[in-house]
Amino acid sequence: MPYLKVILAYEGTNYCGWQAQPDEHGPSVQGTVEKALKKLTGEEIRVTAAGRTDAGVHARGQVISFATGSKIPLERWPLALNAVLPPDIAALRAEEVGPEFHARYSAHSKTYRYTILNSPLRDVFWRRFSWHIRQPLNIEVMEEALAYLKGQHDFRAFCAAGSPVKNFVRTIKDARLRKEGCLINLDIKADGFLYHMARIIAGTLVEVGQGRLKAEAIPEILASRDRGRAGPTAPPHGLCLMEVEY
Amino acid sequence: MPYLKVILAYEGTNYCGWQAQPDEHGPSVQGTVEKALKKLTGEEIRVTAAGRTDAGVHARGQVISFATGSKIPLERWPLALNAVLPPDIAALRAEEVGPEFHARYSAHSKTYRYTILNSPLRDVFWRRFSWHIRQPLNIEVMEEALAYLKGQHDFRAFCAAGSPVKNFVRTIKDARLRKEGCLINLDIKADGFLYHMARIIAGTLVEVGQGRLKAEAIPEILASRDRGRAGPTAPPHGLCLMEVEY
Repeated sequence: MPYLKVILAYEGTNYCGWQAQPDEHGPSVQGTVEKALKKLTGEEIRVTAAGRTDAGVHARGQVISFATGSKIPLERWPLALNAVLPPDIAALRAEEVGPEFHARYSAHSKTYRYTILNSPLRDVFWRRFSWHIRQPLNIEVMEEALAYLKGQHDFRAFCAAGSPVKNFVRTIKDARLRKEGCLINLDIKADGFLYHMARIIAGTLVEVGQGRLKAEAIPEILASRDRGRAGPTAPPHGLCLMEVEY
Repeated sequence: MPYLKVILAYEGTNYCGWQAQPDEHGPSVQGTVEKALKKLTGEEIRVTAAGRTDAGVHARGQVISFATGSKIPLERWPLALNAVLPPDIAALRAEEVGPEFHARYSAHSKTYRYTILNSPLRDVFWRRFSWHIRQPLNIEVMEEALAYLKGQHDFRAFCAAGSPVKNFVRTIKDARLRKEGCLINLDIKADGFLYHMARIIAGTLVEVGQGRLKAEAIPEILASRDRGRAGPTAPPHGLCLMEVEY
């Protein structure tokens, strides 16, 4: 039985997140993909994803893996799957992998992008894909703050309370801020992300950019391991899972 | 009573178009803007728009004009209006104009952009803003076809049947095709557009790009003045009113 790795893009707006939630929260991306796979192959397939994105979070490079007995040729998988997926989810690529491959545990790093629209006026076309901050942000001090977060740290202060994980040490391998017109893109590549970590980093950088927090406070915040010291959790619709590396 | 000119952006997805339609077609952009103005000023304001965009068509630079007795300072108009508009419509700028100004009749030219996503795979983020054409398009021959359309012509062959206008002569002042990655942007600047003209031009260029119509056929199609000779009307969601010049 072949094991497949499929790259997905989706707009998270209408989903309760990757994982299934009680019905009142709307469909999950996972449930929708599994339903499409059932339609395509007739099999009850359980898929594993690299990143369990939250409600409203988007993906350009989510990776899923699953086993299937289907005889569909590899190169026809993306189009075949797209034909049974709703318009806000798309398969981009399929590869055959070994049974030892696991979309989440085999990943070396993931890159998330957080997008801020920094403009006094809103943008109707970016409203689903960015956090609108009206007050001008000071990018230079945000970059200083970001530099303190690079590398290996205990990120407990940047993890939502109640997370069941025990080890809060993660390594940010690369992190960049880039301004293009009114948009500010924050790209963070790490070996793993704690619950809400990318969004708490974005929320903290915005506090710094607004002058409500000093860039030099970041090392103390990290050392405190206290979620209450970091900034607010930025809204989900500015976040997008860009890439997963293996 | 001051006359105002306001620049609007909107996502047309959820509207029946600029003009009000019988209720079952959903709200119009015009009706929604007039309701917002009533909320803001208390006045029953009738607005005039430069381009009466169809259902599903977007705008980045729609221009409206209206008279108001409101004492709101000019520079506060965009934010004040945005506060009462839904998230898919935004006011970008306001200017005071003379009573002789008419958003439609005073316009010298309008620029529409038609966006084609030319890729075997769909793009979930562009699905509301582009026409998805899977087969590779030959841009060179599309550019040749476009060149024949520039200048002053009788565009009756590029006007939807049943239009009440009598004069079908329009001047395309500038027209460009630009490919950026999988996206092809067709920008057309003209002194005026007939009903569905931009979308019929886009549909005809796609026929040419797919090899189903020769670029050299364009002069004959123009001369025929026969809507049946031009290509199909491209879908509305790829179209956007970019700019109006006075």
